[in-house]
Amino acid sequence: MLLFSHTIPSISRLFFPLPLKPNDLSAPTTFSSLNLLRPSHLYLHLPPPFSLPSSPFHRRGVTMGEADRTTADAERFRVTVVGSGNWGSVAAKLVASNTLRLRSFHDEVRMWVFEEMLPGGEKLSDAINRTNENVKYLPGVKLGKNVVADPDLENAVREANMLVFVTPHQFMEGICKMLVGKIRPEAEGISLIKGMEMKKEGPCLISKLITDMLSINCCVLMGANIANEIAVEKFSEATIGYQHSKEVAQRWTKLFSQSYFIVSAVQDIEGVELCGTLKNVVAIGAGLVDGLDMGNNTKAAIMRIGLREMRALSKLLFSSVKDNTFFESCGVADVITTCLGGRNRRVAEAFAKSGGNKSFDELEAELLQGQKLQGVSTAKEVYDVLSHRGWKGLFPFFTTVHEICIGQLPPSAIVEYGERTPKFSLDEGSSKF
Amino acid sequence: MLLFSHTIPSISRLFFPLPLKPNDLSAPTTFSSLNLLRPSHLYLHLPPPFSLPSSPFHRRGVTMGEADRTTADAERFRVTVVGSGNWGSVAAKLVASNTLRLRSFHDEVRMWVFEEMLPGGEKLSDAINRTNENVKYLPGVKLGKNVVADPDLENAVREANMLVFVTPHQFMEGICKMLVGKIRPEAEGISLIKGMEMKKEGPCLISKLITDMLSINCCVLMGANIANEIAVEKFSEATIGYQHSKEVAQRWTKLFSQSYFIVSAVQDIEGVELCGTLKNVVAIGAGLVDGLDMGNNTKAAIMRIGLREMRALSKLLFSSVKDNTFFESCGVADVITTCLGGRNRRVAEAFAKSGGNKSFDELEAELLQGQKLQGVSTAKEVYDVLSHRGWKGLFPFFTTVHEICIGQLPPSAIVEYGERTPKFSLDEGSSKF
Repeated sequence: MLLFSHTIPSISRLFFPLPLKPNDLSAPTTFSSLNLLRPSHLYLHLPPPFSLPSSPFHRRGVTMGEADRTTADAERFRVTVVGSGNWGSVAAKLVASNTLRLRSFHDEVRMWVFEEMLPGGEKLSDAINRTNENVKYLPGVKLGKNVVADPDLENAVREANMLVFVTPHQFMEGICKMLVGKIRPEAEGISLIKGMEMKKEGPCLISKLITDMLSINCCVLMGANIANEIAVEKFSEATIGYQHSKEVAQRWTKLFSQSYFIVSAVQDIEGVELCGTLKNVVAIGAGLVDGLDMGNNTKAAIMRIGLREMRALSKLLFSSVKDNTFFESCGVADVITTCLGGRNRRVAEAFAKSGGNKSFDELEAELLQGQKLQGVSTAKEVYDVLSHRGWKGLFPFFTTVHEICIGQLPPSAIVEYGERTPKFSLDEGSSKF
Repeated sequence: MLLFSHTIPSISRLFFPLPLKPNDLSAPTTFSSLNLLRPSHLYLHLPPPFSLPSSPFHRRGVTMGEADRTTADAERFRVTVVGSGNWGSVAAKLVASNTLRLRSFHDEVRMWVFEEMLPGGEKLSDAINRTNENVKYLPGVKLGKNVVADPDLENAVREANMLVFVTPHQFMEGICKMLVGKIRPEAEGISLIKGMEMKKEGPCLISKLITDMLSINCCVLMGANIANEIAVEKFSEATIGYQHSKEVAQRWTKLFSQSYFIVSAVQDIEGVELCGTLKNVVAIGAGLVDGLDMGNNTKAAIMRIGLREMRALSKLLFSSVKDNTFFESCGVADVITTCLGGRNRRVAEAFAKSGGNKSFDELEAELLQGQKLQGVSTAKEVYDVLSHRGWKGLFPFFTTVHEICIGQLPPSAIVEYGERTPKFSLDEGSSKF
């Protein structure tokens, strides 16, 4: 598969077998039109020299039929997924079933793999291409035969005009450095990366990092998205945040939507991306409530207060942030799922149960087998932003979470919110801000 | 206690011992000012004839001090709680600690008790006044010695100018009939009653029923409020919805606020009251997801979709409904608490686990020991409203919940939402409406 893609020149793809896929761009952009899986049984005739066994279509065993004369192959969008961890593999699977189905996309989805040697001596990328599974990070789930693992970053992105970024956030700057000058100038990016660094001057949005370093437009996709659950096609939703082009956002929406994965787009990239980071601080608060055995009622209150502070802080940091974003999957739903499960919640619960006697670092080492907590460091970064800007009084929840994490307040302080509610007027509710 | 309150004429209260309570009405209306429990150790001298042992102040064993000359007794607001079940008793407790503390309220809180004979032969109202506990509906929790149980509805409301209604919703029409002409004309009401009937013509708001039948203004108080948890002072929040007077809303807010019970007011009575009813339908959906073992991610998505339909329906029914209301405790927090615990969730879970083979009626009888489910009947009523108005296509979640409840769709249909998402445009997110 890799050999194939390296040796066949790009122009030859014009003669490749192509399904006569639904003309997705002309369809009205409603959810219902997206989720209707239409039959696509008509395919181009394939000239014999190009009838390569590695073609995804041969592997699917499809019938050739009438030529598709409306969308030239060169005009189809080519997708590369930059990243191949758990969520990256699921993203490739989601995307790959749509690129086969929808006429405006090239079938092949290239997935850049940070190469690793597997215990048996096989390279991870080879194993993925041989088995069509990410045997290390998403075993047991077929990605789609049109997913091609590629360990060569430069090669993986060369032809793509739709780049899906899904790596740990701390690697993105290095990856961008490697990509400068290597991507197509008209490429569009989307970041699925949750978690960012909050500096005193403000949050380091991954979408902005990508835009600044690569000079491309970059959307984000966030939401209540537990990768392993979406991998087995359990129902979920996601939110795309975009800045300028509604048309591009709709293209991304189509690329990711499935009947079990409902995607909607909002023109609020900062709001959507901040949700994916700030929710981890809320999960710490919810975990503390769990550890204190305060019950669902108190937990619901703390989750709401956390959501309110997420919204208030996002709006203070970016005046363009919209209230409605926090009703989307990236807002309320991701807060719920992160506060019900998730490692931040779990470690915070253990911290409260220990009465604050074990540190978060100790508990992280004990409970997470090397995985890292984001909530505690994000809480510290948020605290620094609040201190720097003189906003601590406006964000008693965020402030309290950090002060509990560092042992300055006892875990029970999380439910003594009444003593330090924000100095807003009662006039129009506490979520006014 | 009853004898005392029946025989001492109202005017004599002017000479009663009164604490020099904080001048709450002049304080700025911030949360922090509300939650600061200020010392109140100065009391009026009591003339000997009125030094009755049944006075709440004697029972509290307070010291008499300087007279409070700023707020005449007759100007103080008198509170009666109409209802004495589990939530009614907690409401009386919340209110009673504030009436003692705040100068603008009369100390005594009267609580109308629907009289019952206890197994030992004592009347419930006598037992409450003897023990200061609602031994039947909230055993083990002291209500405050200034709570006076009164089985005589007419007598209980006679002097009150603040009426707190907290009974099962189906009793309110009958109670209002009994109250016509019996209440003070300047009285203000507040309804803590969750659940209403939805007729084809629209929802029968309890606040409107009270306003129409008694010709008084009526606010509502809703939120993530599990009575037994608030009774033991676990941290919680609530939302007051009001229609016209911010001043009255602030008075109610002060009456209910505690450091563990944060209350805020929004000018959206319909939105707040509808939340308390519609959330039960969402809880049915969440319970079905639990029964199908779909996990937290899917559950979070279904809760969000339910919240979105609550908001959309409320806004279609009343154009005055505000988005922000659904961020308040009455909205997102009550949805969370109801979908995590609660009987609607529980019975729906059992229904899904049975594969829909046992009816909701059977499971209700099996699991709830005579308590009634509201979610199923509300789902039917909502469905009738949607059918009547031609809105079914806009509310696939509400529609699906009802169709599952009546056996028309299998429980798994709750997570096949992708097949029947509403016909909104993708343009600006799915929570736009």
